[in-house]
Order: sequence, then structure tokens, then C-alpha cells
Amino acid sequence: MASRYLEDWTVGERFETPPYTLTRERALAFANEYDPQPFHLDDAAAAASIFGRLSASGWQTVSITMRLIIDLGMFSGPGVGLGVDNLRWLRPVYPGDSLRVVSECTEVRATLEKPNGVVTFRNEAYNQNDVKVLSYVAIMLVNKRPTPSP
Amino acid sequence: MASRYLEDWTVGERFETPPYTLTRERALAFANEYDPQPFHLDDAAAAASIFGRLSASGWQTVSITMRLIIDLGMFSGPGVGLGVDNLRWLRPVYPGDSLRVVSECTEVRATLEKPNGVVTFRNEAYNQNDVKVLSYVAIMLVNKRPTPSP
Repeated sequence: MASRYLEDWTVGERFETPPYTLTRERALAFANEYDPQPFHLDDAAAAASIFGRLSASGWQTVSITMRLIIDLGMFSGPGVGLGVDNLRWLRPVYPGDSLRVVSECTEVRATLEKPNGVVTFRNEAYNQNDVKVLSYVAIMLVNKRPTPSP
Repeated sequence: MASRYLEDWTVGERFETPPYTLTRERALAFANEYDPQPFHLDDAAAAASIFGRLSASGWQTVSITMRLIIDLGMFSGPGVGLGVDNLRWLRPVYPGDSLRVVSECTEVRATLEKPNGVVTFRNEAYNQNDVKVLSYVAIMLVNKRPTPSP
């Protein structure tokens, strides 16, 4: 996907990322550092939890969606996140699962005097069985195309 | 803070975490894995960006708030996140910054027939200069107190 400025985005436009497979090692490393709850770290505790088996931290799964989107190289200049609305973790993600992101541009807002504008996307992550595991609205600050010097 | 069930939460209740200091090494490790944008990885690129110097990924800073809250040990059984609303990254977070979370319980919802309910919190993270760097509403599934067997 070619690198894009604010002017290149159109509401309704969709894109999709390749899949990312989450290893057990990476799930444990993330949970150890940021979400050290027994059901993210220990097989026996996970088996007794509502997840049934070791599951990944939701903060890791949403971070993976960021990685997948950044790897597409769509943003000209920084893809700066201003915020996120309506993040919902819909299904557990387990080590070995592969996630891909389907994204739709839902709003483009430009301000005349500013060198950038705001583009919002509805991002949805699906696992290898095409089950939607999470969704959110990302609010991104995106650069306008530089005007050539006179 | 003592471990809590659904019945123990009251709207308006507030708690605060100790601080967490983000090292440059951890900021780079997270960015490499989940948010590999030049301004999170390279000092020169960061100096030329709107951040002015190397800044942490917003997904890392919000993950740190999770770690700080989990470390308080408040949730009896899993602290399962259902979702997040109104996440806003208000200020950059730089390596060396210390973050702490101030949280307020904003809603407690119980359903008679279910073994758990929903508690929402407004979480705000402040840096070492008491500047608010991010805020969000966390929607958590929390267990009810088990009823003793007859």
C-alpha cells in the first residue's frame, strides 16, 4: 500500500493486513511485563478460568493490530494516535492464533490552517477461523501533503 | 489494597498506584515489537518529529497502567477487561518518565443470575510532573463474592 497523506484518505475505503501469529513465548513475555494475571501466565490457572486455557493479554492483542497496520506503511510521516473509542475484546486470543486486521476509514477531518488533520478508522481483528476477536475506532493525526515551496 | 469482589466496589471510590519508571531499553523493546515507527526508535527521527525526542508507544503507556493496576491486587479472581472507552493520549511519554495511575470507580452493574458483574473505572495516568498523559474508561468483568455452600 502506498504511503498516504491526509488528502489521500476517503471515507468508506477499506484495507486488510496480512496475518500475525502469536507465539506462546511472546504471549508469556508480554503478560509477565504488563498483565501478570495467573490466567495469562499459568496453564493450570488458565484452565480453571473463564478462558479455559492460557490466553493473551488484551493489551497485547490490540498492540499486535498496531504492528500489523504500521507494517503496511500507509502513513506518510508519523501515524500518531490521538485516541481510541469503543475498544472491545470480543473473544479470547490464544497462543498459536493468527490475527489479521480489517480496517475501514470512517471520517476525515481537515482544518484549514493546520499542517495535519484527523482520520478515524474502524479496526477489527479476526483470528484464523474468521472470528472477530476485537474491534475499536482509532483516531489518528495524519499529515497533509506538503505544498511545494514557491 | 485488599482483594475485592463485585459487592465491594462503590461508585466514586478512588485509588492510586505507585509510580512506574519507563526505561529507554523497555521503550525501545516495545516499539521494536509493536509500534516500529522511526520516532519511537531513532533519536534523530524523533528530534525531527512533533514529539521532539524519543517517545514511548501509546500502546506501551496504556499497558503500563494495566501493570500498575494489576500489581495492586484488587481483583478477586481475574480482572477481565471487556473493553475501553474514550482512550486519549494527551501528552507524550519519554524514557525516564514515571507514570502513576489515579482511578475512580464510575459504575457498578450486577445481574441477578450471573456470577459476575461489570465495574467501570476512569483511569488517568500522570507523569512525575503531575501532568496527565493519558486517560480512559476501563470496563471490567468482576466476580461476585461466592455464596457459602449450604
